Amino acid sequence: MVVAAAILPELATQLVVPVAAAVGIAFAVLQWVLVSKVKVAPEPRGEGGSAAGGGAGAGAKDGASEYLIEEEEGLNDHNVVLKCAEIQTAISEGATSFLFTEYKYAGGFMTVFAVLIFVFLGSIEGFSTKSQPCHYSVGKTCKPALANAAFSTIAFVLGAVTSLVSGFLGMKIATYANARTTLEARKGVGKAFIVAFRSGAVMGFLLAASGLFVLYVAINLFGLYYGDDWEGLFEAITGYGLGGSSMALFGRVGGGIYTKAADVGADLVGKVERNIPEDDPRNPAVIADNVGDNVGDIAGMGSDLFGSYAESSCAALVVASISSFGINREFTPMMYPLLISSVGIIACLITTLFATDFFEVKEVDQIEPALKKQLIISTAVMTVGIALVSWLGLPYTFTIFNFGAQKTVHSWYCHLFNSNLYKFVQTLLIKFMISLHLIFYRQLFLCVAVGLWAGLVIGFITEYYTSNAYSPVQDVADSCRTGAATNVIFGLALGYKSVIIPIFAIAFSIFLSFSLAAMYGVAVAALGMLSTIATGLAIDAYGPISDNAGGIAEMAGMSHRIRERTDALDAAGNTTAAIGKGFAIGSAALVSLALFGAFVSRAGITTVDVLTPNVFIGLLVGAMLPYWFSAMTMKSVGSAALKMVEEVRRQFNTIPGLMEGTAKPDYATCVKISTDASIKEMIPPGALVMLTPLIVGTFFGVETLSGVLAGALVSGVQIAISASNTGGAWDNAKKYIEAGASEHAKSLGPKGSDCHKAAVIGDTIGDPLKDTSGPSLNILIKLMAVESLVFAPFFATYGGILFKYL
Amino acid sequence: MVVAAAILPELATQLVVPVAAAVGIAFAVLQWVLVSKVKVAPEPRGEGGSAAGGGAGAGAKDGASEYLIEEEEGLNDHNVVLKCAEIQTAISEGATSFLFTEYKYAGGFMTVFAVLIFVFLGSIEGFSTKSQPCHYSVGKTCKPALANAAFSTIAFVLGAVTSLVSGFLGMKIATYANARTTLEARKGVGKAFIVAFRSGAVMGFLLAASGLFVLYVAINLFGLYYGDDWEGLFEAITGYGLGGSSMALFGRVGGGIYTKAADVGADLVGKVERNIPEDDPRNPAVIADNVGDNVGDIAGMGSDLFGSYAESSCAALVVASISSFGINREFTPMMYPLLISSVGIIACLITTLFATDFFEVKEVDQIEPALKKQLIISTAVMTVGIALVSWLGLPYTFTIFNFGAQKTVHSWYCHLFNSNLYKFVQTLLIKFMISLHLIFYRQLFLCVAVGLWAGLVIGFITEYYTSNAYSPVQDVADSCRTGAATNVIFGLALGYKSVIIPIFAIAFSIFLSFSLAAMYGVAVAALGMLSTIATGLAIDAYGPISDNAGGIAEMAGMSHRIRERTDALDAAGNTTAAIGKGFAIGSAALVSLALFGAFVSRAGITTVDVLTPNVFIGLLVGAMLPYWFSAMTMKSVGSAALKMVEEVRRQFNTIPGLMEGTAKPDYATCVKISTDASIKEMIPPGALVMLTPLIVGTFFGVETLSGVLAGALVSGVQIAISASNTGGAWDNAKKYIEAGASEHAKSLGPKGSDCHKAAVIGDTIGDPLKDTSGPSLNILIKLMAVESLVFAPFFATYGGILFKYL
Repeated sequence: MVVAAAILPELATQLVVPVAAAVGIAFAVLQWVLVSKVKVAPEPRGEGGSAAGGGAGAGAKDGASEYLIEEEEGLNDHNVVLKCAEIQTAISEGATSFLFTEYKYAGGFMTVFAVLIFVFLGSIEGFSTKSQPCHYSVGKTCKPALANAAFSTIAFVLGAVTSLVSGFLGMKIATYANARTTLEARKGVGKAFIVAFRSGAVMGFLLAASGLFVLYVAINLFGLYYGDDWEGLFEAITGYGLGGSSMALFGRVGGGIYTKAADVGADLVGKVERNIPEDDPRNPAVIADNVGDNVGDIAGMGSDLFGSYAESSCAALVVASISSFGINREFTPMMYPLLISSVGIIACLITTLFATDFFEVKEVDQIEPALKKQLIISTAVMTVGIALVSWLGLPYTFTIFNFGAQKTVHSWYCHLFNSNLYKFVQTLLIKFMISLHLIFYRQLFLCVAVGLWAGLVIGFITEYYTSNAYSPVQDVADSCRTGAATNVIFGLALGYKSVIIPIFAIAFSIFLSFSLAAMYGVAVAALGMLSTIATGLAIDAYGPISDNAGGIAEMAGMSHRIRERTDALDAAGNTTAAIGKGFAIGSAALVSLALFGAFVSRAGITTVDVLTPNVFIGLLVGAMLPYWFSAMTMKSVGSAALKMVEEVRRQFNTIPGLMEGTAKPDYATCVKISTDASIKEMIPPGALVMLTPLIVGTFFGVETLSGVLAGALVSGVQIAISASNTGGAWDNAKKYIEAGASEHAKSLGPKGSDCHKAAVIGDTIGDPLKDTSGPSLNILIKLMAVESLVFAPFFATYGGILFKYL
Repeated sequence: MVVAAAILPELATQLVVPVAAAVGIAFAVLQWVLVSKVKVAPEPRGEGGSAAGGGAGAGAKDGASEYLIEEEEGLNDHNVVLKCAEIQTAISEGATSFLFTEYKYAGGFMTVFAVLIFVFLGSIEGFSTKSQPCHYSVGKTCKPALANAAFSTIAFVLGAVTSLVSGFLGMKIATYANARTTLEARKGVGKAFIVAFRSGAVMGFLLAASGLFVLYVAINLFGLYYGDDWEGLFEAITGYGLGGSSMALFGRVGGGIYTKAADVGADLVGKVERNIPEDDPRNPAVIADNVGDNVGDIAGMGSDLFGSYAESSCAALVVASISSFGINREFTPMMYPLLISSVGIIACLITTLFATDFFEVKEVDQIEPALKKQLIISTAVMTVGIALVSWLGLPYTFTIFNFGAQKTVHSWYCHLFNSNLYKFVQTLLIKFMISLHLIFYRQLFLCVAVGLWAGLVIGFITEYYTSNAYSPVQDVADSCRTGAATNVIFGLALGYKSVIIPIFAIAFSIFLSFSLAAMYGVAVAALGMLSTIATGLAIDAYGPISDNAGGIAEMAGMSHRIRERTDALDAAGNTTAAIGKGFAIGSAALVSLALFGAFVSRAGITTVDVLTPNVFIGLLVGAMLPYWFSAMTMKSVGSAALKMVEEVRRQFNTIPGLMEGTAKPDYATCVKISTDASIKEMIPPGALVMLTPLIVGTFFGVETLSGVLAGALVSGVQIAISASNTGGAWDNAKKYIEAGASEHAKSLGPKGSDCHKAAVIGDTIGDPLKDTSGPSLNILIKLMAVESLVFAPFFATYGGILFKYL
């Protein structure tokens, strides 16, 4: 062997990870500080006025050539600032109130579930406190199951709290930034873009860095107790993934129902019955609608991706702990997943500078390319980063656990390397060159990189199918000529079709990583896809912030031009939101497979044979679950929206002067209705997700559960992709007709034409598909897998009651 | 052992099967004769007039209390008879012309594919003509692969021709019966019902009996060559299933595109643009629309179910041939699948008498119960039939091949039977009682019966979700209050939800039959579900006949009351059509699994392990295929419909006097457009189905192909069920609002209200879902499986090129 151990010593690893996390957090704080320089709070009149006046003077000097960018509007209108501040406060309070209610219920649920975890896992060795011989490290003793139960529970709580805090802070910065974006839009589209983007970056870096930091600390603290018992340590750590993912259930499903209930409810009465524009301040549900963008698209998306991140790390760690890294106690390679994330933070940091400092957005049509460039740059930079980490952090050869069998992973050219010819050549080359050579052929590098690039491919395919710059969406818009029915048929067909290439991309990543390094390969491929999470989340959170900014401009009665600027920001955000969803689904698929692999490893299964009745019926029923779950979430949105419709109607009918704008609507009641309805409506789908693995595992055993997980995965990923792309396409087909930017688009419009009406119907149908039922499927497939993983030792011991007694 | 061999001797079996088939054919002919007694052809004036007059007199005597039933209308209007004859001829000619064009293309395709089969299978032993040692019957010699290739090709052609002839005859009788039903509707709804139902029965019995007969003859004729080599014989027989299923591709997919292109095209111009009612003779596409009902719902459905029947028989036979039946050359048990079908024909015959002779439909609300009773009666009678066949046709104990391992199948109470206690008890009981006891515990009886009853459960659940007598469809109708968008959201959610119980029913059948008798059990469970195929097809074909009858009444300008009667027949037909589709999908799932099992047996695979990259990516990509296929078929309907729209518009614009009814439209051109478009549009989805197994098997090998088949099966069955139930629900929600039979329904209507318009949008979206893309998925999953089975020896020998060389 050329290299016996990893180049990076343990001490360096112990430094790199927390430092990277700290840098990420510091960078997030810096962005926050920069955003906070835009003043919204009612300042002393004179000072604020002069500051605004000064800004206006500076702007005037530039000479306004492109009005969207350069011309400054109403900078010294103090009332507007006050109004913005007021609306911002209402949105922020609404979001906080929802999140607190959600957290109250989540807290109750987490407590019960924590107890369940402790009892189920503790019961495995009958709550014995004696150490046991290890399963995989032959001849060593491991900590008792009771300790694993206790630490799993702690990790679970840690994961949930980290997710909660990240989501909450993300929502806070988003509601902090929305009015600021609106106010900056008075100075030009470039300035507004920077504020919105920086705020997104706060969310992205905060989440990525704190997720990494807490995981790192937990491993080290747990290690104090576990000492040499890495099997138990990393088994307990899986609780972190479960905690993060459980919170994501609340964030994604609850938030998803909230946002669409408010949106659909507001539109059905406002736009359809009362014929008032979107975001009109007279609509009682308008604040709830804006709150929804924050709790659904920011807190929900954040918790979803945090869950994926935590789960893929845990899956990789648990497989590594029973592979040569763990058995030989090699710390640096063991931390390889965390090293990838650490480098990811730095790569994303560099990438962010391209949008905020190295390059300036000056015109409207530079916004979307700037955001897309973020994806490409981060992927390119990260590829180098992965190469570096793989070179420094991994030994030359190692063994990965592969379902009972051991899989030795080494360079493809290993035989060549060991040949005499090679040894001769080696002496001719300087050491650096050889090492570089090795980097590129390290198989784990390929696993991580294939995941990373597959994410980019999925992102761009999603863009192709959902952006109105390309023919698929234009065809859907064109089909509106013959009415809503053809629009829906073409939209559904588009969604189905958009599944093809992403599935091939995922399949290719899985095939490559699975073949090279079994389930560990799949787990690190998922981590690769998620390594640019900070950038992904930044451009993702940018969308709802811009959307809110537009809403605030409308509600504060700002000029048409300001609204046009925020609309331009929002349009770019729509496309990136679709990309983000594609990304989230792709990574969820890889993560679930990795978790599935970790589950079968932990449950002691060596084959999951489709040719056995237990597995096959699991597969069939598992493939059905996404349909059941989607039926529930879609119905939930419908029911919650109907409640909202009733309340909005009531207010219009009973509050005198509301339509005339002389009286203020009761926003708070609408916020409360959305909050209560979404919490109530998320119980049935939540129960389906949480109970299925427990019931199947306990009564039907691990084989059937394996089938269920595989079935839900392969079926759910298709519905998730097609649902969110169909919805995105309908949304943008409507926007395409509204914008009327081409001859073709003009022939379909204008707003209010029959074509446009047909497009609006498609858009409304797409709302729950793309923002609730589609993305929620991520949670279904991931959460069932991670729950199975955590409970695997229990199922392996006590599971399959039904078959045992039949 | 109590009984060493089957009770039924070989000679009896050799008699029972052809006699049952002959009885089925004779019964079909009898029904045809009875239908033909209604005269449509222009008779000599005087005679026809007096006969009609006599009928009117007889009717008047009854005293008209319920006008829909008793009052006779326009019996002596000779022009109406002439007009009906004319329309009937047009429909019949259109259907014939479509089928001939389809058969022309199918013929070309079949020729190419037959050559392909011969070359691929013949190449396995390098086209050697020498006999080889058998795989499973140790020590015996089997015929060369070249012989198997030749006979497989012949069986393939036989299957295709049988399907073709059955479909053609079914279409002929349907177009023969439609005008007769209309004319009988003048005498009352009961008489019209009998005509429509008898015609359906002709189709059902003809198809079931001829399918059985040809299979029986083929086995016996092939046997002359094969002699003792049952392995080769039944391997060759699988070609029969492939042939039947390939024709079904043309029937289901081509016919499905035809019928909906014509329907949607006719509606978009007629109803939406020109505001003329459905089935108005001024609409140039009206004949094409009526032709579509026959080629899509009758010939298409028939070929689909024939394919399932042929495939499940072949799957059962091929597994049996390498099990103890085949190895010990036990003829009667070997013919067990054919015996089940034989008894099924007799059971269905008895059932039919309940609708036509034992019991008379007198009132409108007796129609639907009469049809539903058919399902229950046939299931109950058939349960006894299966018990009888299992008792007489099977040995007491036997061994079923189970993927390398052998599975011994015997009574659950075997230990008890062999105990001394049992032997003591046995002496106390008369032999008959013991035998009866044995019947009920024979495991294959359970396999067949569970399939049969699961079919009934699926049928009734489908009815619950698609009939407007129950709350799900009423809720969908109610959601039309808030517009088309909510209608679509609720409809999609209903479809998703309707998947749950059918999947559990299928899973339970699979679990039971798979556990008891491996893949043989699954195959006979599928046969059990299909054993009442004659009755199923009869009530299924009844629907389009009634639909056509209504169209003819409208076009012939018959009175409103006649139309109401045919509408009542049609409404019942809609529900049974949905049941039929549920049935077809459920059986397709079982059949595919059985074929899958037979495939892995033939390909020599012992496990299909999800935990290998080859299988997992197969599973993932397989689960994607139904989406790809659906995207294609939905787009196909859209494109074909647009062509129809253009032609209809052209005729309205260029033919003077068309709208006024003074000029006749050019029906033939519309028929031609639908024909050409559907043939052209079915090429891409057809290619996807036919090429996938060949490409995957050849390049990626049998493991990946197994994954693809399993993935497509578990994913496709869900989309198929949800698509057809969603479509059915929208259709009936619209009908619910139109009929206005309850206070609730009245509050949503009447025709033309906003609610109704929203419901019409849903109905139009549902058309391609329920009649094209949904049912076509049956073909996808079955055809890929049977193709893999036929090519299994080739793939096992040469497959997986890509992995071999990488």
